Amino acid sequence: MLGVRQPEVYGHDTLDDVERLCRATGEECGVEIDFRQSDSEAEIMGWIKAARTSAAGILINPAGFTSTSIAILDSLLMFDGPIIEVHISPLFRRDEFRHLSYVSKAATAKIEGFGIRGYAFAINRLADLVG
Amino acid sequence: MLGVRQPEVYGHDTLDDVERLCRATGEECGVEIDFRQSDSEAEIMGWIKAARTSAAGILINPAGFTSTSIAILDSLLMFDGPIIEVHISPLFRRDEFRHLSYVSKAATAKIEGFGIRGYAFAINRLADLVG
Amino acid sequence: MLGVRQPEVYGHDTLDDVERLCRATGEECGVEIDFRQSDSEAEIMGWIKAARTSAAGILINPAGFTSTSIAILDSLLMFDGPIIEVHISPLFRRDEFRHLSYVSKAATAKIEGFGIRGYAFAINRLADLVG
Amino acid sequence: MLGVRQPEVYGHDTLDDVERLCRATGEECGVEIDFRQSDSEAEIMGWIKAARTSAAGILINPAGFTSTSIAILDSLLMFDGPIIEVHISPLFRRDEFRHLSYVSKAATAKIEGFGIRGYAFAINRLADLVG
Amino acid sequence: MLGVRQPEVYGHDTLDDVERLCRATGEECGVEIDFRQSDSEAEIMGWIKAARTSAAGILINPAGFTSTSIAILDSLLMFDGPIIEVHISPLFRRDEFRHLSYVSKAATAKIEGFGIRGYAFAINRLADLVG
Amino acid sequence: MLGVRQPEVYGHDTLDDVERLCRATGEECGVEIDFRQSDSEAEIMGWIKAARTSAAGILINPAGFTSTSIAILDSLLMFDGPIIEVHISPLFRRDEFRHLSYVSKAATAKIEGFGIRGYAFAINRLADLVG
Amino acid sequence: MLGVRQPEVYGHDTLDDVERLCRATGEECGVEIDFRQSDSEAEIMGWIKAARTSAAGILINPAGFTSTSIAILDSLLMFDGPIIEVHISPLFRRDEFRHLSYVSKAATAKIEGFGIRGYAFAINRLADLVG
Amino acid sequence: MLGVRQPEVYGHDTLDDVERLCRATGEECGVEIDFRQSDSEAEIMGWIKAARTSAAGILINPAGFTSTSIAILDSLLMFDGPIIEVHISPLFRRDEFRHLSYVSKAATAKIEGFGIRGYAFAINRLADLVG
Amino acid sequence: MLGVRQPEVYGHDTLDDVERLCRATGEECGVEIDFRQSDSEAEIMGWIKAARTSAAGILINPAGFTSTSIAILDSLLMFDGPIIEVHISPLFRRDEFRHLSYVSKAATAKIEGFGIRGYAFAINRLADLVG
Amino acid sequence: MLGVRQPEVYGHDTLDDVERLCRATGEECGVEIDFRQSDSEAEIMGWIKAARTSAAGILINPAGFTSTSIAILDSLLMFDGPIIEVHISPLFRRDEFRHLSYVSKAATAKIEGFGIRGYAFAINRLADLVG
Amino acid sequence: MLGVRQPEVYGHDTLDDVERLCRATGEECGVEIDFRQSDSEAEIMGWIKAARTSAAGILINPAGFTSTSIAILDSLLMFDGPIIEVHISPLFRRDEFRHLSYVSKAATAKIEGFGIRGYAFAINRLADLVG
Amino acid sequence: MLGVRQPEVYGHDTLDDVERLCRATGEECGVEIDFRQSDSEAEIMGWIKAARTSAAGILINPAGFTSTSIAILDSLLMFDGPIIEVHISPLFRRDEFRHLSYVSKAATAKIEGFGIRGYAFAINRLADLVG
Repeated sequence: MLGVRQPEVYGHDTLDDVERLCRATGEECGVEIDFRQSDSEAEIMGWIKAARTSAAGILINPAGFTSTSIAILDSLLMFDGPIIEVHISPLFRRDEFRHLSYVSKAATAKIEGFGIRGYAFAINRLADLVG
Repeated sequence: MLGVRQPEVYGHDTLDDVERLCRATGEECGVEIDFRQSDSEAEIMGWIKAARTSAAGILINPAGFTSTSIAILDSLLMFDGPIIEVHISPLFRRDEFRHLSYVSKAATAKIEGFGIRGYAFAINRLADLVG
Repeated sequence: MLGVRQPEVYGHDTLDDVERLCRATGEECGVEIDFRQSDSEAEIMGWIKAARTSAAGILINPAGFTSTSIAILDSLLMFDGPIIEVHISPLFRRDEFRHLSYVSKAATAKIEGFGIRGYAFAINRLADLVG
Repeated sequence: MLGVRQPEVYGHDTLDDVERLCRATGEECGVEIDFRQSDSEAEIMGWIKAARTSAAGILINPAGFTSTSIAILDSLLMFDGPIIEVHISPLFRRDEFRHLSYVSKAATAKIEGFGIRGYAFAINRLADLVG
Repeated sequence: MLGVRQPEVYGHDTLDDVERLCRATGEECGVEIDFRQSDSEAEIMGWIKAARTSAAGILINPAGFTSTSIAILDSLLMFDGPIIEVHISPLFRRDEFRHLSYVSKAATAKIEGFGIRGYAFAINRLADLVG
Repeated sequence: MLGVRQPEVYGHDTLDDVERLCRATGEECGVEIDFRQSDSEAEIMGWIKAARTSAAGILINPAGFTSTSIAILDSLLMFDGPIIEVHISPLFRRDEFRHLSYVSKAATAKIEGFGIRGYAFAINRLADLVG
Repeated sequence: MLGVRQPEVYGHDTLDDVERLCRATGEECGVEIDFRQSDSEAEIMGWIKAARTSAAGILINPAGFTSTSIAILDSLLMFDGPIIEVHISPLFRRDEFRHLSYVSKAATAKIEGFGIRGYAFAINRLADLVG
Repeated sequence: MLGVRQPEVYGHDTLDDVERLCRATGEECGVEIDFRQSDSEAEIMGWIKAARTSAAGILINPAGFTSTSIAILDSLLMFDGPIIEVHISPLFRRDEFRHLSYVSKAATAKIEGFGIRGYAFAINRLADLVG
Repeated sequence: MLGVRQPEVYGHDTLDDVERLCRATGEECGVEIDFRQSDSEAEIMGWIKAARTSAAGILINPAGFTSTSIAILDSLLMFDGPIIEVHISPLFRRDEFRHLSYVSKAATAKIEGFGIRGYAFAINRLADLVG
Repeated sequence: MLGVRQPEVYGHDTLDDVERLCRATGEECGVEIDFRQSDSEAEIMGWIKAARTSAAGILINPAGFTSTSIAILDSLLMFDGPIIEVHISPLFRRDEFRHLSYVSKAATAKIEGFGIRGYAFAINRLADLVG
Repeated sequence: MLGVRQPEVYGHDTLDDVERLCRATGEECGVEIDFRQSDSEAEIMGWIKAARTSAAGILINPAGFTSTSIAILDSLLMFDGPIIEVHISPLFRRDEFRHLSYVSKAATAKIEGFGIRGYAFAINRLADLVG
Repeated sequence: MLGVRQPEVYGHDTLDDVERLCRATGEECGVEIDFRQSDSEAEIMGWIKAARTSAAGILINPAGFTSTSIAILDSLLMFDGPIIEVHISPLFRRDEFRHLSYVSKAATAKIEGFGIRGYAFAINRLADLVG
């Protein structure tokens, strides 16, 4: 089982498109997807802590918390499996203050700017790593 | 045609493995791969300049030039198609001085820490974008 | 309708005084006021997102989130109408680490140090802009 | 009596519009307005020093001197009444080097981005404070 | 009554061990302990605000919020009694970005690296100060 | 045996009070205290070097040398047992240039702002660790 | 008509030499030269503002105001034609604090270290651009 | 002849006291004093330039221009005799942004915090140096 | 003989236009031009070293090597004649990371933003200096 | 009694010249001089601590300890009388790393670059202040 | 076999002197020297990569690439034997921008300012380490 | 005669080994060695000052004083002969705060990471320079 969390959605894709893509990719790769979205840092932290016993890997799009939440980083640091950070558009082309990612300090890999396909590639990679 | 350039190789994978993977992925996606490796900044710049008329997209692993070559950045800025930056291992987990990527300032997307599969995902994405 | 959010209260004025002043000013200007206060970043983000379809302008006193919440900034950046940032006492006279305002990166205007009258002036200005 | 100084003018509003608005607001609030504009730092310093004995409050739009004139700051620091800093457009949306305001170190309050109405609100506030 | 909040737990000690130790120490010192843990910044802020009327002192382990929450700092600044910051392991030996503590700007004292005994010492000290 | 060094004294407490407290606590904990004070960096370095063969732990209040003496740090780094840094008043509330502690780079734990009771808590903790 | 302002003079060349050279070059290029020099920031600002209706281009040697006058920059930003910045000796070889040029933020081009011939080349170039 | 310029006056001393003290000290030392005060940077620059042919030394209290006027520095750098910088109160105890003195880059000596007696000592020293 | 190296070309001008302009200007000024272009840092370094015995001056447009090549700077530092740095468009209007020029540390003069006419002016100036 | 400490000697003046000058000035001003010199930070700290009960003022030339000794600063901060810092040559003209003076944070006044006469002026001033 | 690369030559010593000294020292120490010099970063990288199978140690004088070439650093990091960095003159006395050495991050030892004898000492040391 | 001071000893080598090596090398080179070690900054400063009349060169291993003692630097700056700085292990591989060496600002040469052989090489070089 892989966790998929908190996607930011750009352009014509909706949150449903992302979820559908994640589920389809999960099926292809033979992994179960638990897809969630929240604006609450505490809720996200709770999911990550719970994932320690229920998930083999984490895919996270930390959106607005990327550069500010050491609390989310601390939750991720207690997770033993692989963690992949996904950003739909490239952070490195946006404001300077968005370049720092606390999440990256716990991540195994990162993919930016691939649009929503980044979710599919990340799930593929997680499936490899936890297979 | 997509250009694939200058891979750094880690672990048990050899440069040949990377090339084979790129060619296989290219075939799958129906794009022609022109695979090259060089230690020479000037040669890489030459290839990029030439790519303006002969390639639809560029996949680049700038390795040791990532954080130091504005000259390569300037070559990339003159290229009109999509450019994807690939790093086999995550730069964001290595030395502070490697975090700056000049190449990113010209890139469409970036993928780090996916091992050599990052090349395959990048070629898939380039195929989407230039298809 | 104009949203009024999360006032910090100083001196002898209470939150009720702020709300009364806001409602009175709204009436004068012929705009409807939706007055809310929360300590929860997620709740504030939710209100801002909802405001996209239900409010013509936003008045925000981001208090303790001013310098730390990129998540609130991201919510505000998706709002199309005018946004005015209000601080009862002047941030620029307080600690250095309070001088940075992420909210300002999305704001149309800012008013600091006018006491609670700042709310009245801001509502007047929003009424001008959305009138 | 309130001093109004050195407005920068944007859009369709002229310096005369600002003066007329200030005078009208002054009349409403029952305060006398002494409206002046100068490009000369020394002249502005002289007016501020003179204001110590002739004005109850100062409204200042320091324009191009905002971030560079410690001499104007020093003049303002010798003034005992309230000082309000006005900027027609928001400094915080302009170049990084304009974000520092020496004037703010002596100011009671600041209003930015309210267009020329900022002058009216500032005069209202000064009238409150010196009333 | 003393508030004890949000402990991070390391090594073999569990949150229950911390609570037991705190209650035992409280009994010894003749102070009542109100022990709470939350991942929610808003909930912690609420408890601190409530403590203004119900607690004589605060013991806080701000964990992942230490370096990022000005909102928690602002809540603490409104509390009149002594505040002691506890970290089980020493922050000063961990990542550079953890060295800044906003909580310290409101704290009376700080104890780091004493393991869970730090809680006992802090309660002893609070009992001295509020005795 | 535990070394106790170079206390700074604030308020009404004298150096003798500190020594008396340290000796009493040592007796309670069943550890022998060697209490010393010096203004000489070289003498302090000599004591620390000697402690390698004669002490099980070190308690140090580095006072004015906290932020400047790499030589004392180097002496401490050669000591194998636990080292606790004590400051009677909190460094983190004093001047910015006092926030850096070289001693912390060798310390096991730190306690600041507990008044002279910090010495007692530190000796208790050292007794735990070397017991 | 082209404005030529405030030359600094080095070596054996006098201000008269500069003026003569400017007039001669102006004649050659068929442009009218209005040559002025002042130590007064306000006077320079006045000339620049006046140039908006009376000059097609501006040549400015900002001398001691180069790195400090945002007020002069603001005047230049309101000018629509080309602006060339001239320094007789190279700023980039002088003190670090002279490397920042606010004038450059409004300039079309810059020439440094060409001696007084820099004026001639700048006038030539302005003539090209406004011709 | 020695130039004395632009004193800031603190406490009970007036500008007249400073002038009287300077003239008295000049007489004692057998040097002629030319005492001037201005808020105008351009006027001060003009006096310094004129001093090249009419004064043997310069005593300057740059007040609000200390940290901002490279133009005054440039004027001083063209003066061949000794230059002494005087501040009645110590700059090093005031705001950080006042610590930089451009005037110091041209000065022979500096005296801060001696009250108005600093003028007398500086004139004595200038008399030594130009005697 | 004067060396002209490595032009970047913008807008409608081609490398041939630059070469033609350089040769024409050289003829006018009575100096021989050796025009070269290379992407290879090593080749450029070789040319500069060779120029020590074969050229009287160097005109260099360091393009992408401007801010990164200390090796080229070291080659230039061994050249005794005048060196002029040319940039067709103004570096000072482009990215921050392009503002540092190592080449400037060896240059006699610099000209930016004059379009390809900058080459002609630079050759004129070199001819003056080596004449 | 006034303490005079640790002079650095430049040019033809010897330590004896400084002592003679200090004693002569002391006699003139009716104050007793206790003149000492040491390379030992601990010894200097001891003298300063002793001065709390035996001296009315301190004149200190902290030489090589100026920018590094917080321990000396801490000793000075416990002294209640006036403290004057003397440097024979101007620190502000020497290396950047010498510009910071910890001693200044405790000093009443500072005099730099007056040669050994600085000692005489400082003693005069101390005599004023403690008279 | 030991590799000796890319010497910079100062004063009266020529590259031949360096080579002769290296060969003589190699003979004395019983190690074979492979002496090479190049301006090409790519060629140097190639030699270092080849050295992995053919050399027991590397002596490198990175000259102009010292502070800029992460690509050379990356080549050195793949070499298992000892690496000694040699600079004929001391970098630490030259420009600030030369103080950073990427090569040092891979080096075993460094010798600066020993003139060409530094090469002899380095070869002696390499012989010790690989003997 | 050459002075050898204050070695730090690592690994299996003892201070006696260093002294023996220094004396043996001194004999070989025909120079007399005065070998000393101290933890006291004042004592080291005294030795350096004395060396001005009794030694032809200085070899110094500043150990813990490397990055903090401007006082030792000042002593060294008054020494006319060659000064060589030795570190047994490479500073450039240790903590960032150890990279700055004040001693280097007075040194002729530096050798790091050669183990205790660095002393022998340094004495050889000093013998060359003072021979």
